Amino acid sequence: MWVKTVTPGFGDIDGLRHINNCKLPVWFELSREPVFRLFHPNLSLDGWQLIMARISVDFVAQMRLGSDITIHTFIRKIGRSSMTVFQEAWQNGQLGAKGEAIIVYFDFENEKSIPIPDAIRVELEKHFVLSDNLSLKTRSGRFPEIASS
Amino acid sequence: MWVKTVTPGFGDIDGLRHINNCKLPVWFELSREPVFRLFHPNLSLDGWQLIMARISVDFVAQMRLGSDITIHTFIRKIGRSSMTVFQEAWQNGQLGAKGEAIIVYFDFENEKSIPIPDAIRVELEKHFVLSDNLSLKTRSGRFPEIASS
Amino acid sequence: MWVKTVTPGFGDIDGLRHINNCKLPVWFELSREPVFRLFHPNLSLDGWQLIMARISVDFVAQMRLGSDITIHTFIRKIGRSSMTVFQEAWQNGQLGAKGEAIIVYFDFENEKSIPIPDAIRVELEKHFVLSDNLSLKTRSGRFPEIASS
Amino acid sequence: MWVKTVTPGFGDIDGLRHINNCKLPVWFELSREPVFRLFHPNLSLDGWQLIMARISVDFVAQMRLGSDITIHTFIRKIGRSSMTVFQEAWQNGQLGAKGEAIIVYFDFENEKSIPIPDAIRVELEKHFVLSDNLSLKTRSGRFPEIASS
Repeated sequence: MWVKTVTPGFGDIDGLRHINNCKLPVWFELSREPVFRLFHPNLSLDGWQLIMARISVDFVAQMRLGSDITIHTFIRKIGRSSMTVFQEAWQNGQLGAKGEAIIVYFDFENEKSIPIPDAIRVELEKHFVLSDNLSLKTRSGRFPEIASS
Repeated sequence: MWVKTVTPGFGDIDGLRHINNCKLPVWFELSREPVFRLFHPNLSLDGWQLIMARISVDFVAQMRLGSDITIHTFIRKIGRSSMTVFQEAWQNGQLGAKGEAIIVYFDFENEKSIPIPDAIRVELEKHFVLSDNLSLKTRSGRFPEIASS
Repeated sequence: MWVKTVTPGFGDIDGLRHINNCKLPVWFELSREPVFRLFHPNLSLDGWQLIMARISVDFVAQMRLGSDITIHTFIRKIGRSSMTVFQEAWQNGQLGAKGEAIIVYFDFENEKSIPIPDAIRVELEKHFVLSDNLSLKTRSGRFPEIASS
Repeated sequence: MWVKTVTPGFGDIDGLRHINNCKLPVWFELSREPVFRLFHPNLSLDGWQLIMARISVDFVAQMRLGSDITIHTFIRKIGRSSMTVFQEAWQNGQLGAKGEAIIVYFDFENEKSIPIPDAIRVELEKHFVLSDNLSLKTRSGRFPEIASS
């Protein structure tokens, strides 16, 4: 698990005085930096080979101004050339949102995906979500009948 | 179908010179305004009764600076108290991204969902995705094997 | 004068239910696109030669969700290698904010400014703020004793 | 001086691979939180009495992805009912941007400014820019002939 702390700003809450839902993809992207660094250690953009295929966020509880938010980042799945990142946003000991991002290792020049090298795969696996350190099944969302990730 | 046009700004592209993935949730939210107005005609925030349960975006093709982006907004599903909005972002005649948002009609005071009134349901149905005006099945994403919405 | 219309989104207002001040630089940048296009007609980023030196915004009146905002963009000053853009944000017939941006025509490779070509200078001059079509002197800000641009 | 560290995200750089200029107002606002807390200790928005009158940013050097940015926040001036905040953004030991924000202590209901209480004034003064700990005169901007704050 990687951990990143962010401070919500005055402009991050909306008229309902909750964190606006569009901020979560931003904070989740910021917190995926260690994943990016496994492929591009100093984040150099020349020769960048990662592309986003999909993002999703489930909103679990309202988050507010005034307390830091901690983002937990895990790896949920590793495919041949893609990986699924699972993330949670916690504020004051409460889960506020969780999300997934599917990232593809990608050759932009030839427009096709590339197999993830074994050395990186091993590093990714160190951050796997484990059922015993994260009781995912019992963490229902705000609207368990409709929201699932 | 509702239609909204947005102009990407200089800061909306990232170091790869593509629209940053985090902009899509922002533009999709902006384009859901007609849905919000069915419940709150003048967008007054007093007594606001809509809450986001989930968003997802599939990235289909890279979008760039220099051309407007057109957002198409449909209703895909209407439940007892929630609705699923389906949206597409088009640039230069090409589908760049598609997404879903699940919105719940919600009583913030009592913290529970409310049934969608029939009069609003009828209006929402006018914007249903129809299989014959939107050939969804043939619109595969960038990575058809992993991305699905 | 160039004119651009933007629609404020749900996340653009903050907890006070006014447009968050940080949105103005974003909308002003978006509305400077015609200025950028005088130098780079199709906004191609290869060989881009404009750099921001300074931005400022004066907040004149609160802007809100629910009505479009119209951005007026003028040229206030043209120097040897820099230009000052003056912009206003109007909502419902009321001036909400005004701002300036100083842009420098710049050779990134040699890290020095370049003289603005006469052909572009002529185009820029067509958008000069004129004292008779814009009664600037009478448009005081919210706090005339402190805010001036 | 208050200090806040932010990590630039992938979407915070633009097509030139520099931090987009519109991010600075966002990070500066975030870093003014301790100023806000002098007036509203727990950032409660009920009865909020601060309003932005003006912001400005001078861009001094390009900032990039890959290293944290440290924001220094000072008080430059205290008037009867307003204060001028001065801020700097540093990356890798280099000044990247500096800015000012004029904030007014404000009674929203009666739409008029309020005198800053002495107790808060004393706290603000503890964060004054001092000429000997900040050699402002020697810190010229990128374009000393045009940019000044």
